[in-house]
Amino acid sequence: MKQYLKHHEWHIIEDGLNPHYNKISESVFSLGNGRMGQRATFEEDYSGETHQGSYVAGVYYPDKTRVGWWKNGYPEYFAKVLNAPSWIEIKIKIGDQTLDLAKCKVEKFRRVLDMQQGLLHRAFTATLPDGKKISVDSKRFCSMADGEIGAIRYEITPLNFSAPITLTLPVDADVVNKDSNYDEKFWEEVSKEATPGLAIVNAQTKKTLFQVCTGIQYDIQRNGKSITGNVTTNLREKYADNVVVTDLQEGTPLVIFKYAAILSSENHPKDQMVKHCKAKLKEAVAAGFDKLFADHAKVWAHKWEECDVTIEGDVAAQQGIRFNIFQLTQTYTGEDERLNIGPKGFTGEKYGGSTYWDTEAYCLPFFLSTAEPKVARNLLVYRYKHLGKAIENAQKLGFKDGAAFYPFVTMNGEECHNEWEITFEEIHRTSAMAYAMRDYIDYTGDKDYLTEFGLEVLIGIARFWNQRATWSEDKGKYVVLGVTGPNEYENNVNNNWYTNYLGAWTLRFAREAVDYVKTSNPKRYAELVTKTKFEEKAETDRWKHISDNMYYPYDAKRKVILQQDGFLDKELIRVKDLKPEDRPLNQKWSWDRILRSCFIKQADVLQGIFLFEDDFDLDTIRRNFDFYEPMTVHESSLSPCVHVILASKLGYKEQAYEFYLRTSRLDLDDYNNDTEEGCHITSMAGTWMSVVKGFGGMRVRDGKLHFTPFIPDQWKSYSFRLEFRDRVIKVKISSDKTETILEHGEPLEVMMNGKPVLLKK
Amino acid sequence: MKQYLKHHEWHIIEDGLNPHYNKISESVFSLGNGRMGQRATFEEDYSGETHQGSYVAGVYYPDKTRVGWWKNGYPEYFAKVLNAPSWIEIKIKIGDQTLDLAKCKVEKFRRVLDMQQGLLHRAFTATLPDGKKISVDSKRFCSMADGEIGAIRYEITPLNFSAPITLTLPVDADVVNKDSNYDEKFWEEVSKEATPGLAIVNAQTKKTLFQVCTGIQYDIQRNGKSITGNVTTNLREKYADNVVVTDLQEGTPLVIFKYAAILSSENHPKDQMVKHCKAKLKEAVAAGFDKLFADHAKVWAHKWEECDVTIEGDVAAQQGIRFNIFQLTQTYTGEDERLNIGPKGFTGEKYGGSTYWDTEAYCLPFFLSTAEPKVARNLLVYRYKHLGKAIENAQKLGFKDGAAFYPFVTMNGEECHNEWEITFEEIHRTSAMAYAMRDYIDYTGDKDYLTEFGLEVLIGIARFWNQRATWSEDKGKYVVLGVTGPNEYENNVNNNWYTNYLGAWTLRFAREAVDYVKTSNPKRYAELVTKTKFEEKAETDRWKHISDNMYYPYDAKRKVILQQDGFLDKELIRVKDLKPEDRPLNQKWSWDRILRSCFIKQADVLQGIFLFEDDFDLDTIRRNFDFYEPMTVHESSLSPCVHVILASKLGYKEQAYEFYLRTSRLDLDDYNNDTEEGCHITSMAGTWMSVVKGFGGMRVRDGKLHFTPFIPDQWKSYSFRLEFRDRVIKVKISSDKTETILEHGEPLEVMMNGKPVLLKK
Repeated sequence: MKQYLKHHEWHIIEDGLNPHYNKISESVFSLGNGRMGQRATFEEDYSGETHQGSYVAGVYYPDKTRVGWWKNGYPEYFAKVLNAPSWIEIKIKIGDQTLDLAKCKVEKFRRVLDMQQGLLHRAFTATLPDGKKISVDSKRFCSMADGEIGAIRYEITPLNFSAPITLTLPVDADVVNKDSNYDEKFWEEVSKEATPGLAIVNAQTKKTLFQVCTGIQYDIQRNGKSITGNVTTNLREKYADNVVVTDLQEGTPLVIFKYAAILSSENHPKDQMVKHCKAKLKEAVAAGFDKLFADHAKVWAHKWEECDVTIEGDVAAQQGIRFNIFQLTQTYTGEDERLNIGPKGFTGEKYGGSTYWDTEAYCLPFFLSTAEPKVARNLLVYRYKHLGKAIENAQKLGFKDGAAFYPFVTMNGEECHNEWEITFEEIHRTSAMAYAMRDYIDYTGDKDYLTEFGLEVLIGIARFWNQRATWSEDKGKYVVLGVTGPNEYENNVNNNWYTNYLGAWTLRFAREAVDYVKTSNPKRYAELVTKTKFEEKAETDRWKHISDNMYYPYDAKRKVILQQDGFLDKELIRVKDLKPEDRPLNQKWSWDRILRSCFIKQADVLQGIFLFEDDFDLDTIRRNFDFYEPMTVHESSLSPCVHVILASKLGYKEQAYEFYLRTSRLDLDDYNNDTEEGCHITSMAGTWMSVVKGFGGMRVRDGKLHFTPFIPDQWKSYSFRLEFRDRVIKVKISSDKTETILEHGEPLEVMMNGKPVLLKK
Repeated sequence: MKQYLKHHEWHIIEDGLNPHYNKISESVFSLGNGRMGQRATFEEDYSGETHQGSYVAGVYYPDKTRVGWWKNGYPEYFAKVLNAPSWIEIKIKIGDQTLDLAKCKVEKFRRVLDMQQGLLHRAFTATLPDGKKISVDSKRFCSMADGEIGAIRYEITPLNFSAPITLTLPVDADVVNKDSNYDEKFWEEVSKEATPGLAIVNAQTKKTLFQVCTGIQYDIQRNGKSITGNVTTNLREKYADNVVVTDLQEGTPLVIFKYAAILSSENHPKDQMVKHCKAKLKEAVAAGFDKLFADHAKVWAHKWEECDVTIEGDVAAQQGIRFNIFQLTQTYTGEDERLNIGPKGFTGEKYGGSTYWDTEAYCLPFFLSTAEPKVARNLLVYRYKHLGKAIENAQKLGFKDGAAFYPFVTMNGEECHNEWEITFEEIHRTSAMAYAMRDYIDYTGDKDYLTEFGLEVLIGIARFWNQRATWSEDKGKYVVLGVTGPNEYENNVNNNWYTNYLGAWTLRFAREAVDYVKTSNPKRYAELVTKTKFEEKAETDRWKHISDNMYYPYDAKRKVILQQDGFLDKELIRVKDLKPEDRPLNQKWSWDRILRSCFIKQADVLQGIFLFEDDFDLDTIRRNFDFYEPMTVHESSLSPCVHVILASKLGYKEQAYEFYLRTSRLDLDDYNNDTEEGCHITSMAGTWMSVVKGFGGMRVRDGKLHFTPFIPDQWKSYSFRLEFRDRVIKVKISSDKTETILEHGEPLEVMMNGKPVLLKK
């Protein structure tokens, strides 16, 4: 845990250069706009610890799998969102000295992420080894108004000298992923050009043949007037630049505007990439930095209107929640159904930028409540489009007859992960797709999603469970053997309760969906029956038989659900009785020791109770919470939010608040010592849920919004806004009252602490 | 399964060149002498499928571990016996044409492995692309009389031409392991030289700094007279050769004798390597091929006297058992306690030439019965010397207080394997070291082994079980959670019966050992107590408590032992009901499917019953055999032999014979489609056990030899010889009688079918 960042309601602030934390800051101060993103690396050279990272959404490379011991069924590759051609560099040489903050005396260093406007601002003064002193002020953003535009304003002022300055303004596609399995570079050059004022590299990924055309133009100004300088252009393999030599005049700022256009062949014909890139650059230069920024800031203002959460009386908490919302929003805008939410977004390489069940289980509720329904719907459609691949995935593992097994990690629908205990056995994720539909339908009321897309997916998933659950003669029940539950600190267990429960629920939900579509749209139903070769009677009868006769491990003595069959053989120890030097377990204990311990990585039984809360009475929830939480180490960033929500429900206010702090400032305070690899984007949605579903007690039941709010003692008030069925509702909770305001739309009845309240404008 | 090799009692014969089976033949026809070995690659160039492999015992390289997803506790490297500098090449150019059997018309090709004399013989005629026809006859051996000597006699006769011939006679250390994790070459050059008649390369392994000095000399003869030819010498990186140009005269054979000396720094001071190598070569050349071979063949004659098994009436079975004995004998001679038995011996790279529990569980009985006791004792001492590392291994996984956890795969005592389900969880192997002691003591009567070495190891192993078994409140018993049993088709299970049984037995055996040493040698005992910080009362009390209260899964309905806690949840299907296209499971099914199936890779419960046979009555053995064998796929080469032995005991004669065929000709018929990677050396000991303990019913009980022989219907007779407590006993079983002859030593009472028989010379 580190606390070097300043608290502020709207800004993330680093005062003073922290070389050892630089990679953490590069993650935290990242920028993105849903189409592309950029870590907060410096524009000028830096020989200290740094990890350059530019990313373009949807552009991936199938990196050949690295594996110790091959298991049948492993994928051949891991699809990775690539470190993309870099456009931010402004390399500076004064006389013969390179500006490199690792080699200067640096003062007044300040890095600010203005979350309100989506702007990265950095300022410092530096004394070069020969005594020349300069001040620098740099601003940049990735435009939310035009996802293909990035812009930088870089101002440099010589404080105690005049001298020639050499500026290098490159586009560099000769980049490598740090996590490349075989140290391979993934980009090849298609074309490049450099003319005075312009540099373009059109690069192509190997194998997948995505093209990304990255172009830059620039404008250098002194005293508000553009100057040309002495320009040379350079081309190297996968690289183009302009080198501009001009004069620095003591006390007079030199301002460099660098405009970048980053185009992907996902959005442009390959033979038009360079042409479109030039046109886009021309537009950007014509508009200029200020206009581009104004357009960008306007979008942010609108976004914040939709999704801001305010907290009064606790700046750290306010900053935390806004940081989470900011990062989520710049990772996924919901405009492109081909895209999804990588666990690190555009802030790092880890987890390859691929899609996990995090999206359905954690991110969907955020987008449901803070954006128009099509955003969440696009997340569902993304998986619909992968159905064919999910069926292929299932076939590779020996399933048949159209069973669909969604991958644990994927870019294009194919499985990428290769740990057998996860890849093959963490099967509950395939039902996350089903649960997401229920969540979406409950929230939006758009039950026809089933007709258009949902039922086809559900038939596939139900067929998977139908084959995966097997009959135990011994138990006289259906069992699900050899699984890993959400708690990945148990592997290859039998009858993980969460998995069995979710599987049985899926089979029931699929039957309901069959009935709905059959009744509401017989024509479409007939089409689907043909397309999926659905044998309704035989299949649904068996689904019913399985869901009616599923086995659920239970401890009658303690009256708690059992996480899995063998759980009670374990030594039941509390986390608080562990020695500090044993934590975190995943760094200190060998894997077998973790597996046979009772310690739980993240909510497992409690995840099930969270998802199916209304199936359990409060006493049951309390007993299970009191049994499992003390054994939970929360070593997944996805764990605390579920506990906030359940603790809130149980009235464990202090505990709820403690969990909340862990989730909301996870990256700002580098809680898990890994933020330098990127921010925990998907778990950020959990932070939002913690406030809205946890403290706010927001639920949707039978098409109605419910609230049972409370306020942590540390806060004066907090508020959030919800988009719900063509309404915008603002909820503000203070210690003494709750205000619910209908900001937009027709009157609506909501339930406040169990009582109906009619909201009108 | 392939059956291209001819049946013969003493020879392995390949008639005709089989390019697609060449790598299989290279494994099968391998030569070795305990110190070094060589696959049966051709002396001349070959551009077809081939895998060059020369190996020097004990010389390994710590190849950096390759891993997909790192788990805490994984080893940093995998120690590999290296592909060593190559000494066998005799490259031939006639005119400007290279002799390469892949590019010639080849006739009368015949490759013979003479097992009786340890000689590889190959002959063929080849027509070169330009029509020149030659015949070749090549013989080679790795001397059993001097483990550092290899020799080749290569005779080439031009049948239809006279022409110049260019012979290249190299030593080549620029070799690579096919299984190198990062395509790294493991050898560096120390020195090299090439003078007319001689080439030497002294090479050193990176990191481990073993040196292997490989030298060759040669003698070329025409009409019985040495000729010189026109000699040039060449040195390249890690390479030295002589190139000799002379004439081939139509109809006149040219005979090349190539002598090699292969010295390891394990046996010579590094600064004397080259000197000793030259001296050794000088000796070899002076002796000449025929004398060297005579000395070598004499050792083989003696070896066969010790360990031959004869089978009358079934040539395939006779060839099979001799092939197994031949390979075992040339892999391990028992002279050097630093060496052990790699699963592939000197026949391939797979499994890195490292030591597995195969040695203790399968190989030890063979060496106990066919060699003087020190050979088996050296195998035990090998592990004694690794005790310190076994304690370190345990510490890495969180065990303390001197607990010893022997590695699954090792070269120097450190763990090399990195599959968590094996490395961390297949814990039964640590008790294989304890069982081996019992086996050794039962057979030899040398109980003082405990005093000198055994007890110290047992204390370490018992301490491991003491910590690894945990108390289950729920069961009121000790449980062993998270293990993989011998059946590796179940991973991370709870209470694998074999593991629990072996663990509890180890704790009892350790207590017995404590009592024995304490009583018989109090002084040594006191030393050990101090050395191991042994707290006798507290520790042995707890050992007793655990072994008295161990939990054993059991099915009261079927009255069978349960393989593990969850076994009855599985669908119990018979192997014979599997479709042929599903076999072998490990190639056809994904790992999760295998894991949750009932199918058993190799004896598991039955392995325990095999080891502790006298703990069970015949009905119990039968019930368990009848229950488990039908679910066993025998996809480990270690499986069938255990089943031969139990089936024999149960009187299932036909089944026993069927299993026997699977084990005895596994490599000759390439049963598992993997012999090209090397022969299954360790399981060959199982073949021997199948005959002696299976059909012969040999056991040792209370210091006495027991036999309950039967003969398979297909055989006329079979015989084997045993070394037992200073006696040599020959047992010959025919369909009508059993002869037991004391060939050497004092009179001895043995039990034949339960009745005492006094053997006298």
